[in-house]
Amino acid sequence: MSIQQKKNWRTKLHEIIYEADTPAGKLFDVVLLITIIASILLVMLESVKSINAKYHDLLNISEWIITILFTIEYIVRIITVRKPFRYIFSFYGIVDLLSTIPKYISIIFGGVHALATLRALRLLRVFRILKLVRYLGASNNLARAIKASRAKISVFLFTVIIATIILGTIMYLVEGEENGFTNIPKSVYWCIVTLTTVGFGDIAPQTPLGQFIASLIMILGYGIIAVPTGIVSAEYTAQNKPKQEPEKDQWHLNTQSCPNCSAEKHKDNAKFCYKCGHNLHHA
Amino acid sequence: MSIQQKKNWRTKLHEIIYEADTPAGKLFDVVLLITIIASILLVMLESVKSINAKYHDLLNISEWIITILFTIEYIVRIITVRKPFRYIFSFYGIVDLLSTIPKYISIIFGGVHALATLRALRLLRVFRILKLVRYLGASNNLARAIKASRAKISVFLFTVIIATIILGTIMYLVEGEENGFTNIPKSVYWCIVTLTTVGFGDIAPQTPLGQFIASLIMILGYGIIAVPTGIVSAEYTAQNKPKQEPEKDQWHLNTQSCPNCSAEKHKDNAKFCYKCGHNLHHA
Amino acid sequence: MSIQQKKNWRTKLHEIIYEADTPAGKLFDVVLLITIIASILLVMLESVKSINAKYHDLLNISEWIITILFTIEYIVRIITVRKPFRYIFSFYGIVDLLSTIPKYISIIFGGVHALATLRALRLLRVFRILKLVRYLGASNNLARAIKASRAKISVFLFTVIIATIILGTIMYLVEGEENGFTNIPKSVYWCIVTLTTVGFGDIAPQTPLGQFIASLIMILGYGIIAVPTGIVSAEYTAQNKPKQEPEKDQWHLNTQSCPNCSAEKHKDNAKFCYKCGHNLHHA
Amino acid sequence: MSIQQKKNWRTKLHEIIYEADTPAGKLFDVVLLITIIASILLVMLESVKSINAKYHDLLNISEWIITILFTIEYIVRIITVRKPFRYIFSFYGIVDLLSTIPKYISIIFGGVHALATLRALRLLRVFRILKLVRYLGASNNLARAIKASRAKISVFLFTVIIATIILGTIMYLVEGEENGFTNIPKSVYWCIVTLTTVGFGDIAPQTPLGQFIASLIMILGYGIIAVPTGIVSAEYTAQNKPKQEPEKDQWHLNTQSCPNCSAEKHKDNAKFCYKCGHNLHHA
Repeated sequence: MSIQQKKNWRTKLHEIIYEADTPAGKLFDVVLLITIIASILLVMLESVKSINAKYHDLLNISEWIITILFTIEYIVRIITVRKPFRYIFSFYGIVDLLSTIPKYISIIFGGVHALATLRALRLLRVFRILKLVRYLGASNNLARAIKASRAKISVFLFTVIIATIILGTIMYLVEGEENGFTNIPKSVYWCIVTLTTVGFGDIAPQTPLGQFIASLIMILGYGIIAVPTGIVSAEYTAQNKPKQEPEKDQWHLNTQSCPNCSAEKHKDNAKFCYKCGHNLHHA
Repeated sequence: MSIQQKKNWRTKLHEIIYEADTPAGKLFDVVLLITIIASILLVMLESVKSINAKYHDLLNISEWIITILFTIEYIVRIITVRKPFRYIFSFYGIVDLLSTIPKYISIIFGGVHALATLRALRLLRVFRILKLVRYLGASNNLARAIKASRAKISVFLFTVIIATIILGTIMYLVEGEENGFTNIPKSVYWCIVTLTTVGFGDIAPQTPLGQFIASLIMILGYGIIAVPTGIVSAEYTAQNKPKQEPEKDQWHLNTQSCPNCSAEKHKDNAKFCYKCGHNLHHA
Repeated sequence: MSIQQKKNWRTKLHEIIYEADTPAGKLFDVVLLITIIASILLVMLESVKSINAKYHDLLNISEWIITILFTIEYIVRIITVRKPFRYIFSFYGIVDLLSTIPKYISIIFGGVHALATLRALRLLRVFRILKLVRYLGASNNLARAIKASRAKISVFLFTVIIATIILGTIMYLVEGEENGFTNIPKSVYWCIVTLTTVGFGDIAPQTPLGQFIASLIMILGYGIIAVPTGIVSAEYTAQNKPKQEPEKDQWHLNTQSCPNCSAEKHKDNAKFCYKCGHNLHHA
Repeated sequence: MSIQQKKNWRTKLHEIIYEADTPAGKLFDVVLLITIIASILLVMLESVKSINAKYHDLLNISEWIITILFTIEYIVRIITVRKPFRYIFSFYGIVDLLSTIPKYISIIFGGVHALATLRALRLLRVFRILKLVRYLGASNNLARAIKASRAKISVFLFTVIIATIILGTIMYLVEGEENGFTNIPKSVYWCIVTLTTVGFGDIAPQTPLGQFIASLIMILGYGIIAVPTGIVSAEYTAQNKPKQEPEKDQWHLNTQSCPNCSAEKHKDNAKFCYKCGHNLHHA
């Protein structure tokens, strides 16, 4: 029964790729993790001119190896999942495609390496890092605290933006173009730099009045940093009640996903999908 | 009965402008929101010389369109509200006037665009952004937490100011004019820049002793940032008890306001003013 | 009975100077507050060369008026208090003396304005701002929270200092003298600037390895700022239980102090010193 | 009985070195503390060229005195402890060795002072500061709070790193090499500098789009600083319940350690090891 055989073969692959509780699955996850980090380092090193000049061939070959590995992974993921289209158009499906395709595009457009758009496309590979999100696990309390504070943080950010626009315009009037505040957008940019206590110093007020207003902005920024912190802190405290249970699942390598509906975050010992009831170990 | 008719006409307009629970009212709010944001962008773009040189006519015409829209809004608001003077001298009334008037002033003073005061007046248009405050809603707990911590934060800021004045004077003595600390106000300014961890770097201590004192100021600033945060956080936790109720009303577009007493923050389905009992849908 | 008369006269003055619950006492406090702030502004303005050159005489006369006012205040304080020496050697006594004396010293040393030590002495007048501490009142909960966290914050600061010394030495080795890290103290200074997220930018790592270590330091600094905040916040929450009572006494103008033992922080309606039992209204 | 005598002699030394509740032990601790701080200052001063040129001999002699003191301390520690190898390979044992050895190495390699590796080795002496960790005591609640938040802080840092890599790559594309973003690692470095609100200003975005993205990064950084603070604060509050007990033991000078099992943190008046029951005052 070749269909049965094929099914078994698909089931096995699904187990390796989507699950982490078999030795083969764990090995796959570790290899994938290393490959992703290596690929990010490659993209970074390639952008350093001196390194690219010296090791261009080595970098190119490594990049091809990684691209082929990611291609195989992508194809196998499509094959083994029951509803391929749901995977393809899911967040991870798109990230996986974007991680694989840039190198192929660079062939098609051949020698025109200098093309800016192409350069951008090739740098899309850096988004491979998003593949790591799979391993991030769910810091549930934290995520819930941020979600619960979302509305308040939005109001806070909205207020900050209104403040920076008004203060930026005032600084534009006070300092003027001769002191680096050449237009209102730049003034607002400076105001954000100052309010968030970053303070590059590429633009700095020169007039006494400008420095006085800048002082007010800084003290304001120093004070209002307390607001989001207070919000998150309080929400988090409120949600931190059932703290007794062991919170070990933050960094778990369990990437198990339902072969039927692609649902994730199954328990380590789950046999059936908690969403659709499909058997997790049979594609 | 023309009076009845006029009343109906006024009532309808009041509904559109001050309320958000009818389709027309919602549309009005959305259009107003977009117009405000567009007008802010206009003011900003106008200040960028290269853009102003290229698209001067387009920007001017857009500015006129927005000014006329705001003029109509301002007049209609006065007409439809029962106590116009209360509106005119309210916070929003003044903001609405300031948002409308600068362009007219620029006509009166004709060609004298270079006049600094006029330039400032025209930039008043940026305060249109305050019209957005209407849509901010009430982040009640947060506002209450800040209000409750006000006295403590004042004491904190007062202490910070005393510290910066003393430390600024010491730095003026230690570093002196040759290292950029040309006078005490500038030294105090530098001290605020440092204590708030902004750190522009336009002035930086050069002598070993100055750098040592600067280190102390930085560590001090790094430490005392904990104080306002701790205050807001604790106050917020204390007021966060009745957290069960759904807090969805933070970003509501309900700008309904009583035609009689101008009270705001009515419930979405309110028919009568919670303050004066006036029928909200009849001016 | 001239002794009785003198006592009455002293008692009245004591009431005016040390108490704030009579109209005369309140007026005295407000005048003193304004004089202190004016005197601080004077010291600041005097240090600005252009202003000093233009208004030298005006500043000098104002300074003399303020000095004489402070002299009178100092003498009267000594006369009206029962144990003058306790006042003279108290914190406020020393601050009051330092606030008064610099101008007299500048006469004695006559024309030698350029003398650096003298310049420093004259700037002592800035410490007059400490006279404001009298009006700061007791932010009791806050002070208690900081006191309770003192040991922990010390351990925290001690750890930060150890970390900056080690990291500073490493940066000195990595970056070397050619990139601005001329010696270990300067490297440690840079490390404090970076860890506290101030970031002047007068010294910045140039080598890739140096920038990598700098990144680690910055992320470390970004992370550990959470520690003191968490401590103060938690301590403050713990001490914030009896929050019901009105906390209005933070900015009170009650500067009442016992004529016998100089104890402060009496209740507004106190008649007897809570420390020594002396009648507060009779010197 | 020379063995008995020797034992007594060893016991006495153990008492002095490892314990702090006898006058001699306390004196030893204070002397050690001063010596460590002096030795750190020496290393620092030696790196300042002008000082080293002037006081080279003095610094050299002082360094030798300190090295000999540390050598004696190291040898005596080995002699007096019952299980020397456990001490030698413990954290403090290694720190003590590293604190002693660099000066001897500098003799062996004689005149070749310029050797970079040697210079690095000599700077190992700065790790002597870790000897101070002995006196740090246990800020138990704090350590527990950080430990409990470890997983969450890791997730947070991991997210920050992913964000900086993606945002750094985007900034590299937007700003390009002509504005200082010469390669992706440097762009990521800039992104960390900005997100952590350090803001050196050695690299700063020049294009309007770059400044816009930078503004987003800064506001993001300003917002997410709330996350670790909220975590630590909440965990700390949760663990702060049994706050009644006096927490005086944070800065205790009790460095008593069991001569048998090297266990530390004994009570000041302990006579027997709380771990192995060995008499603390008899080696």
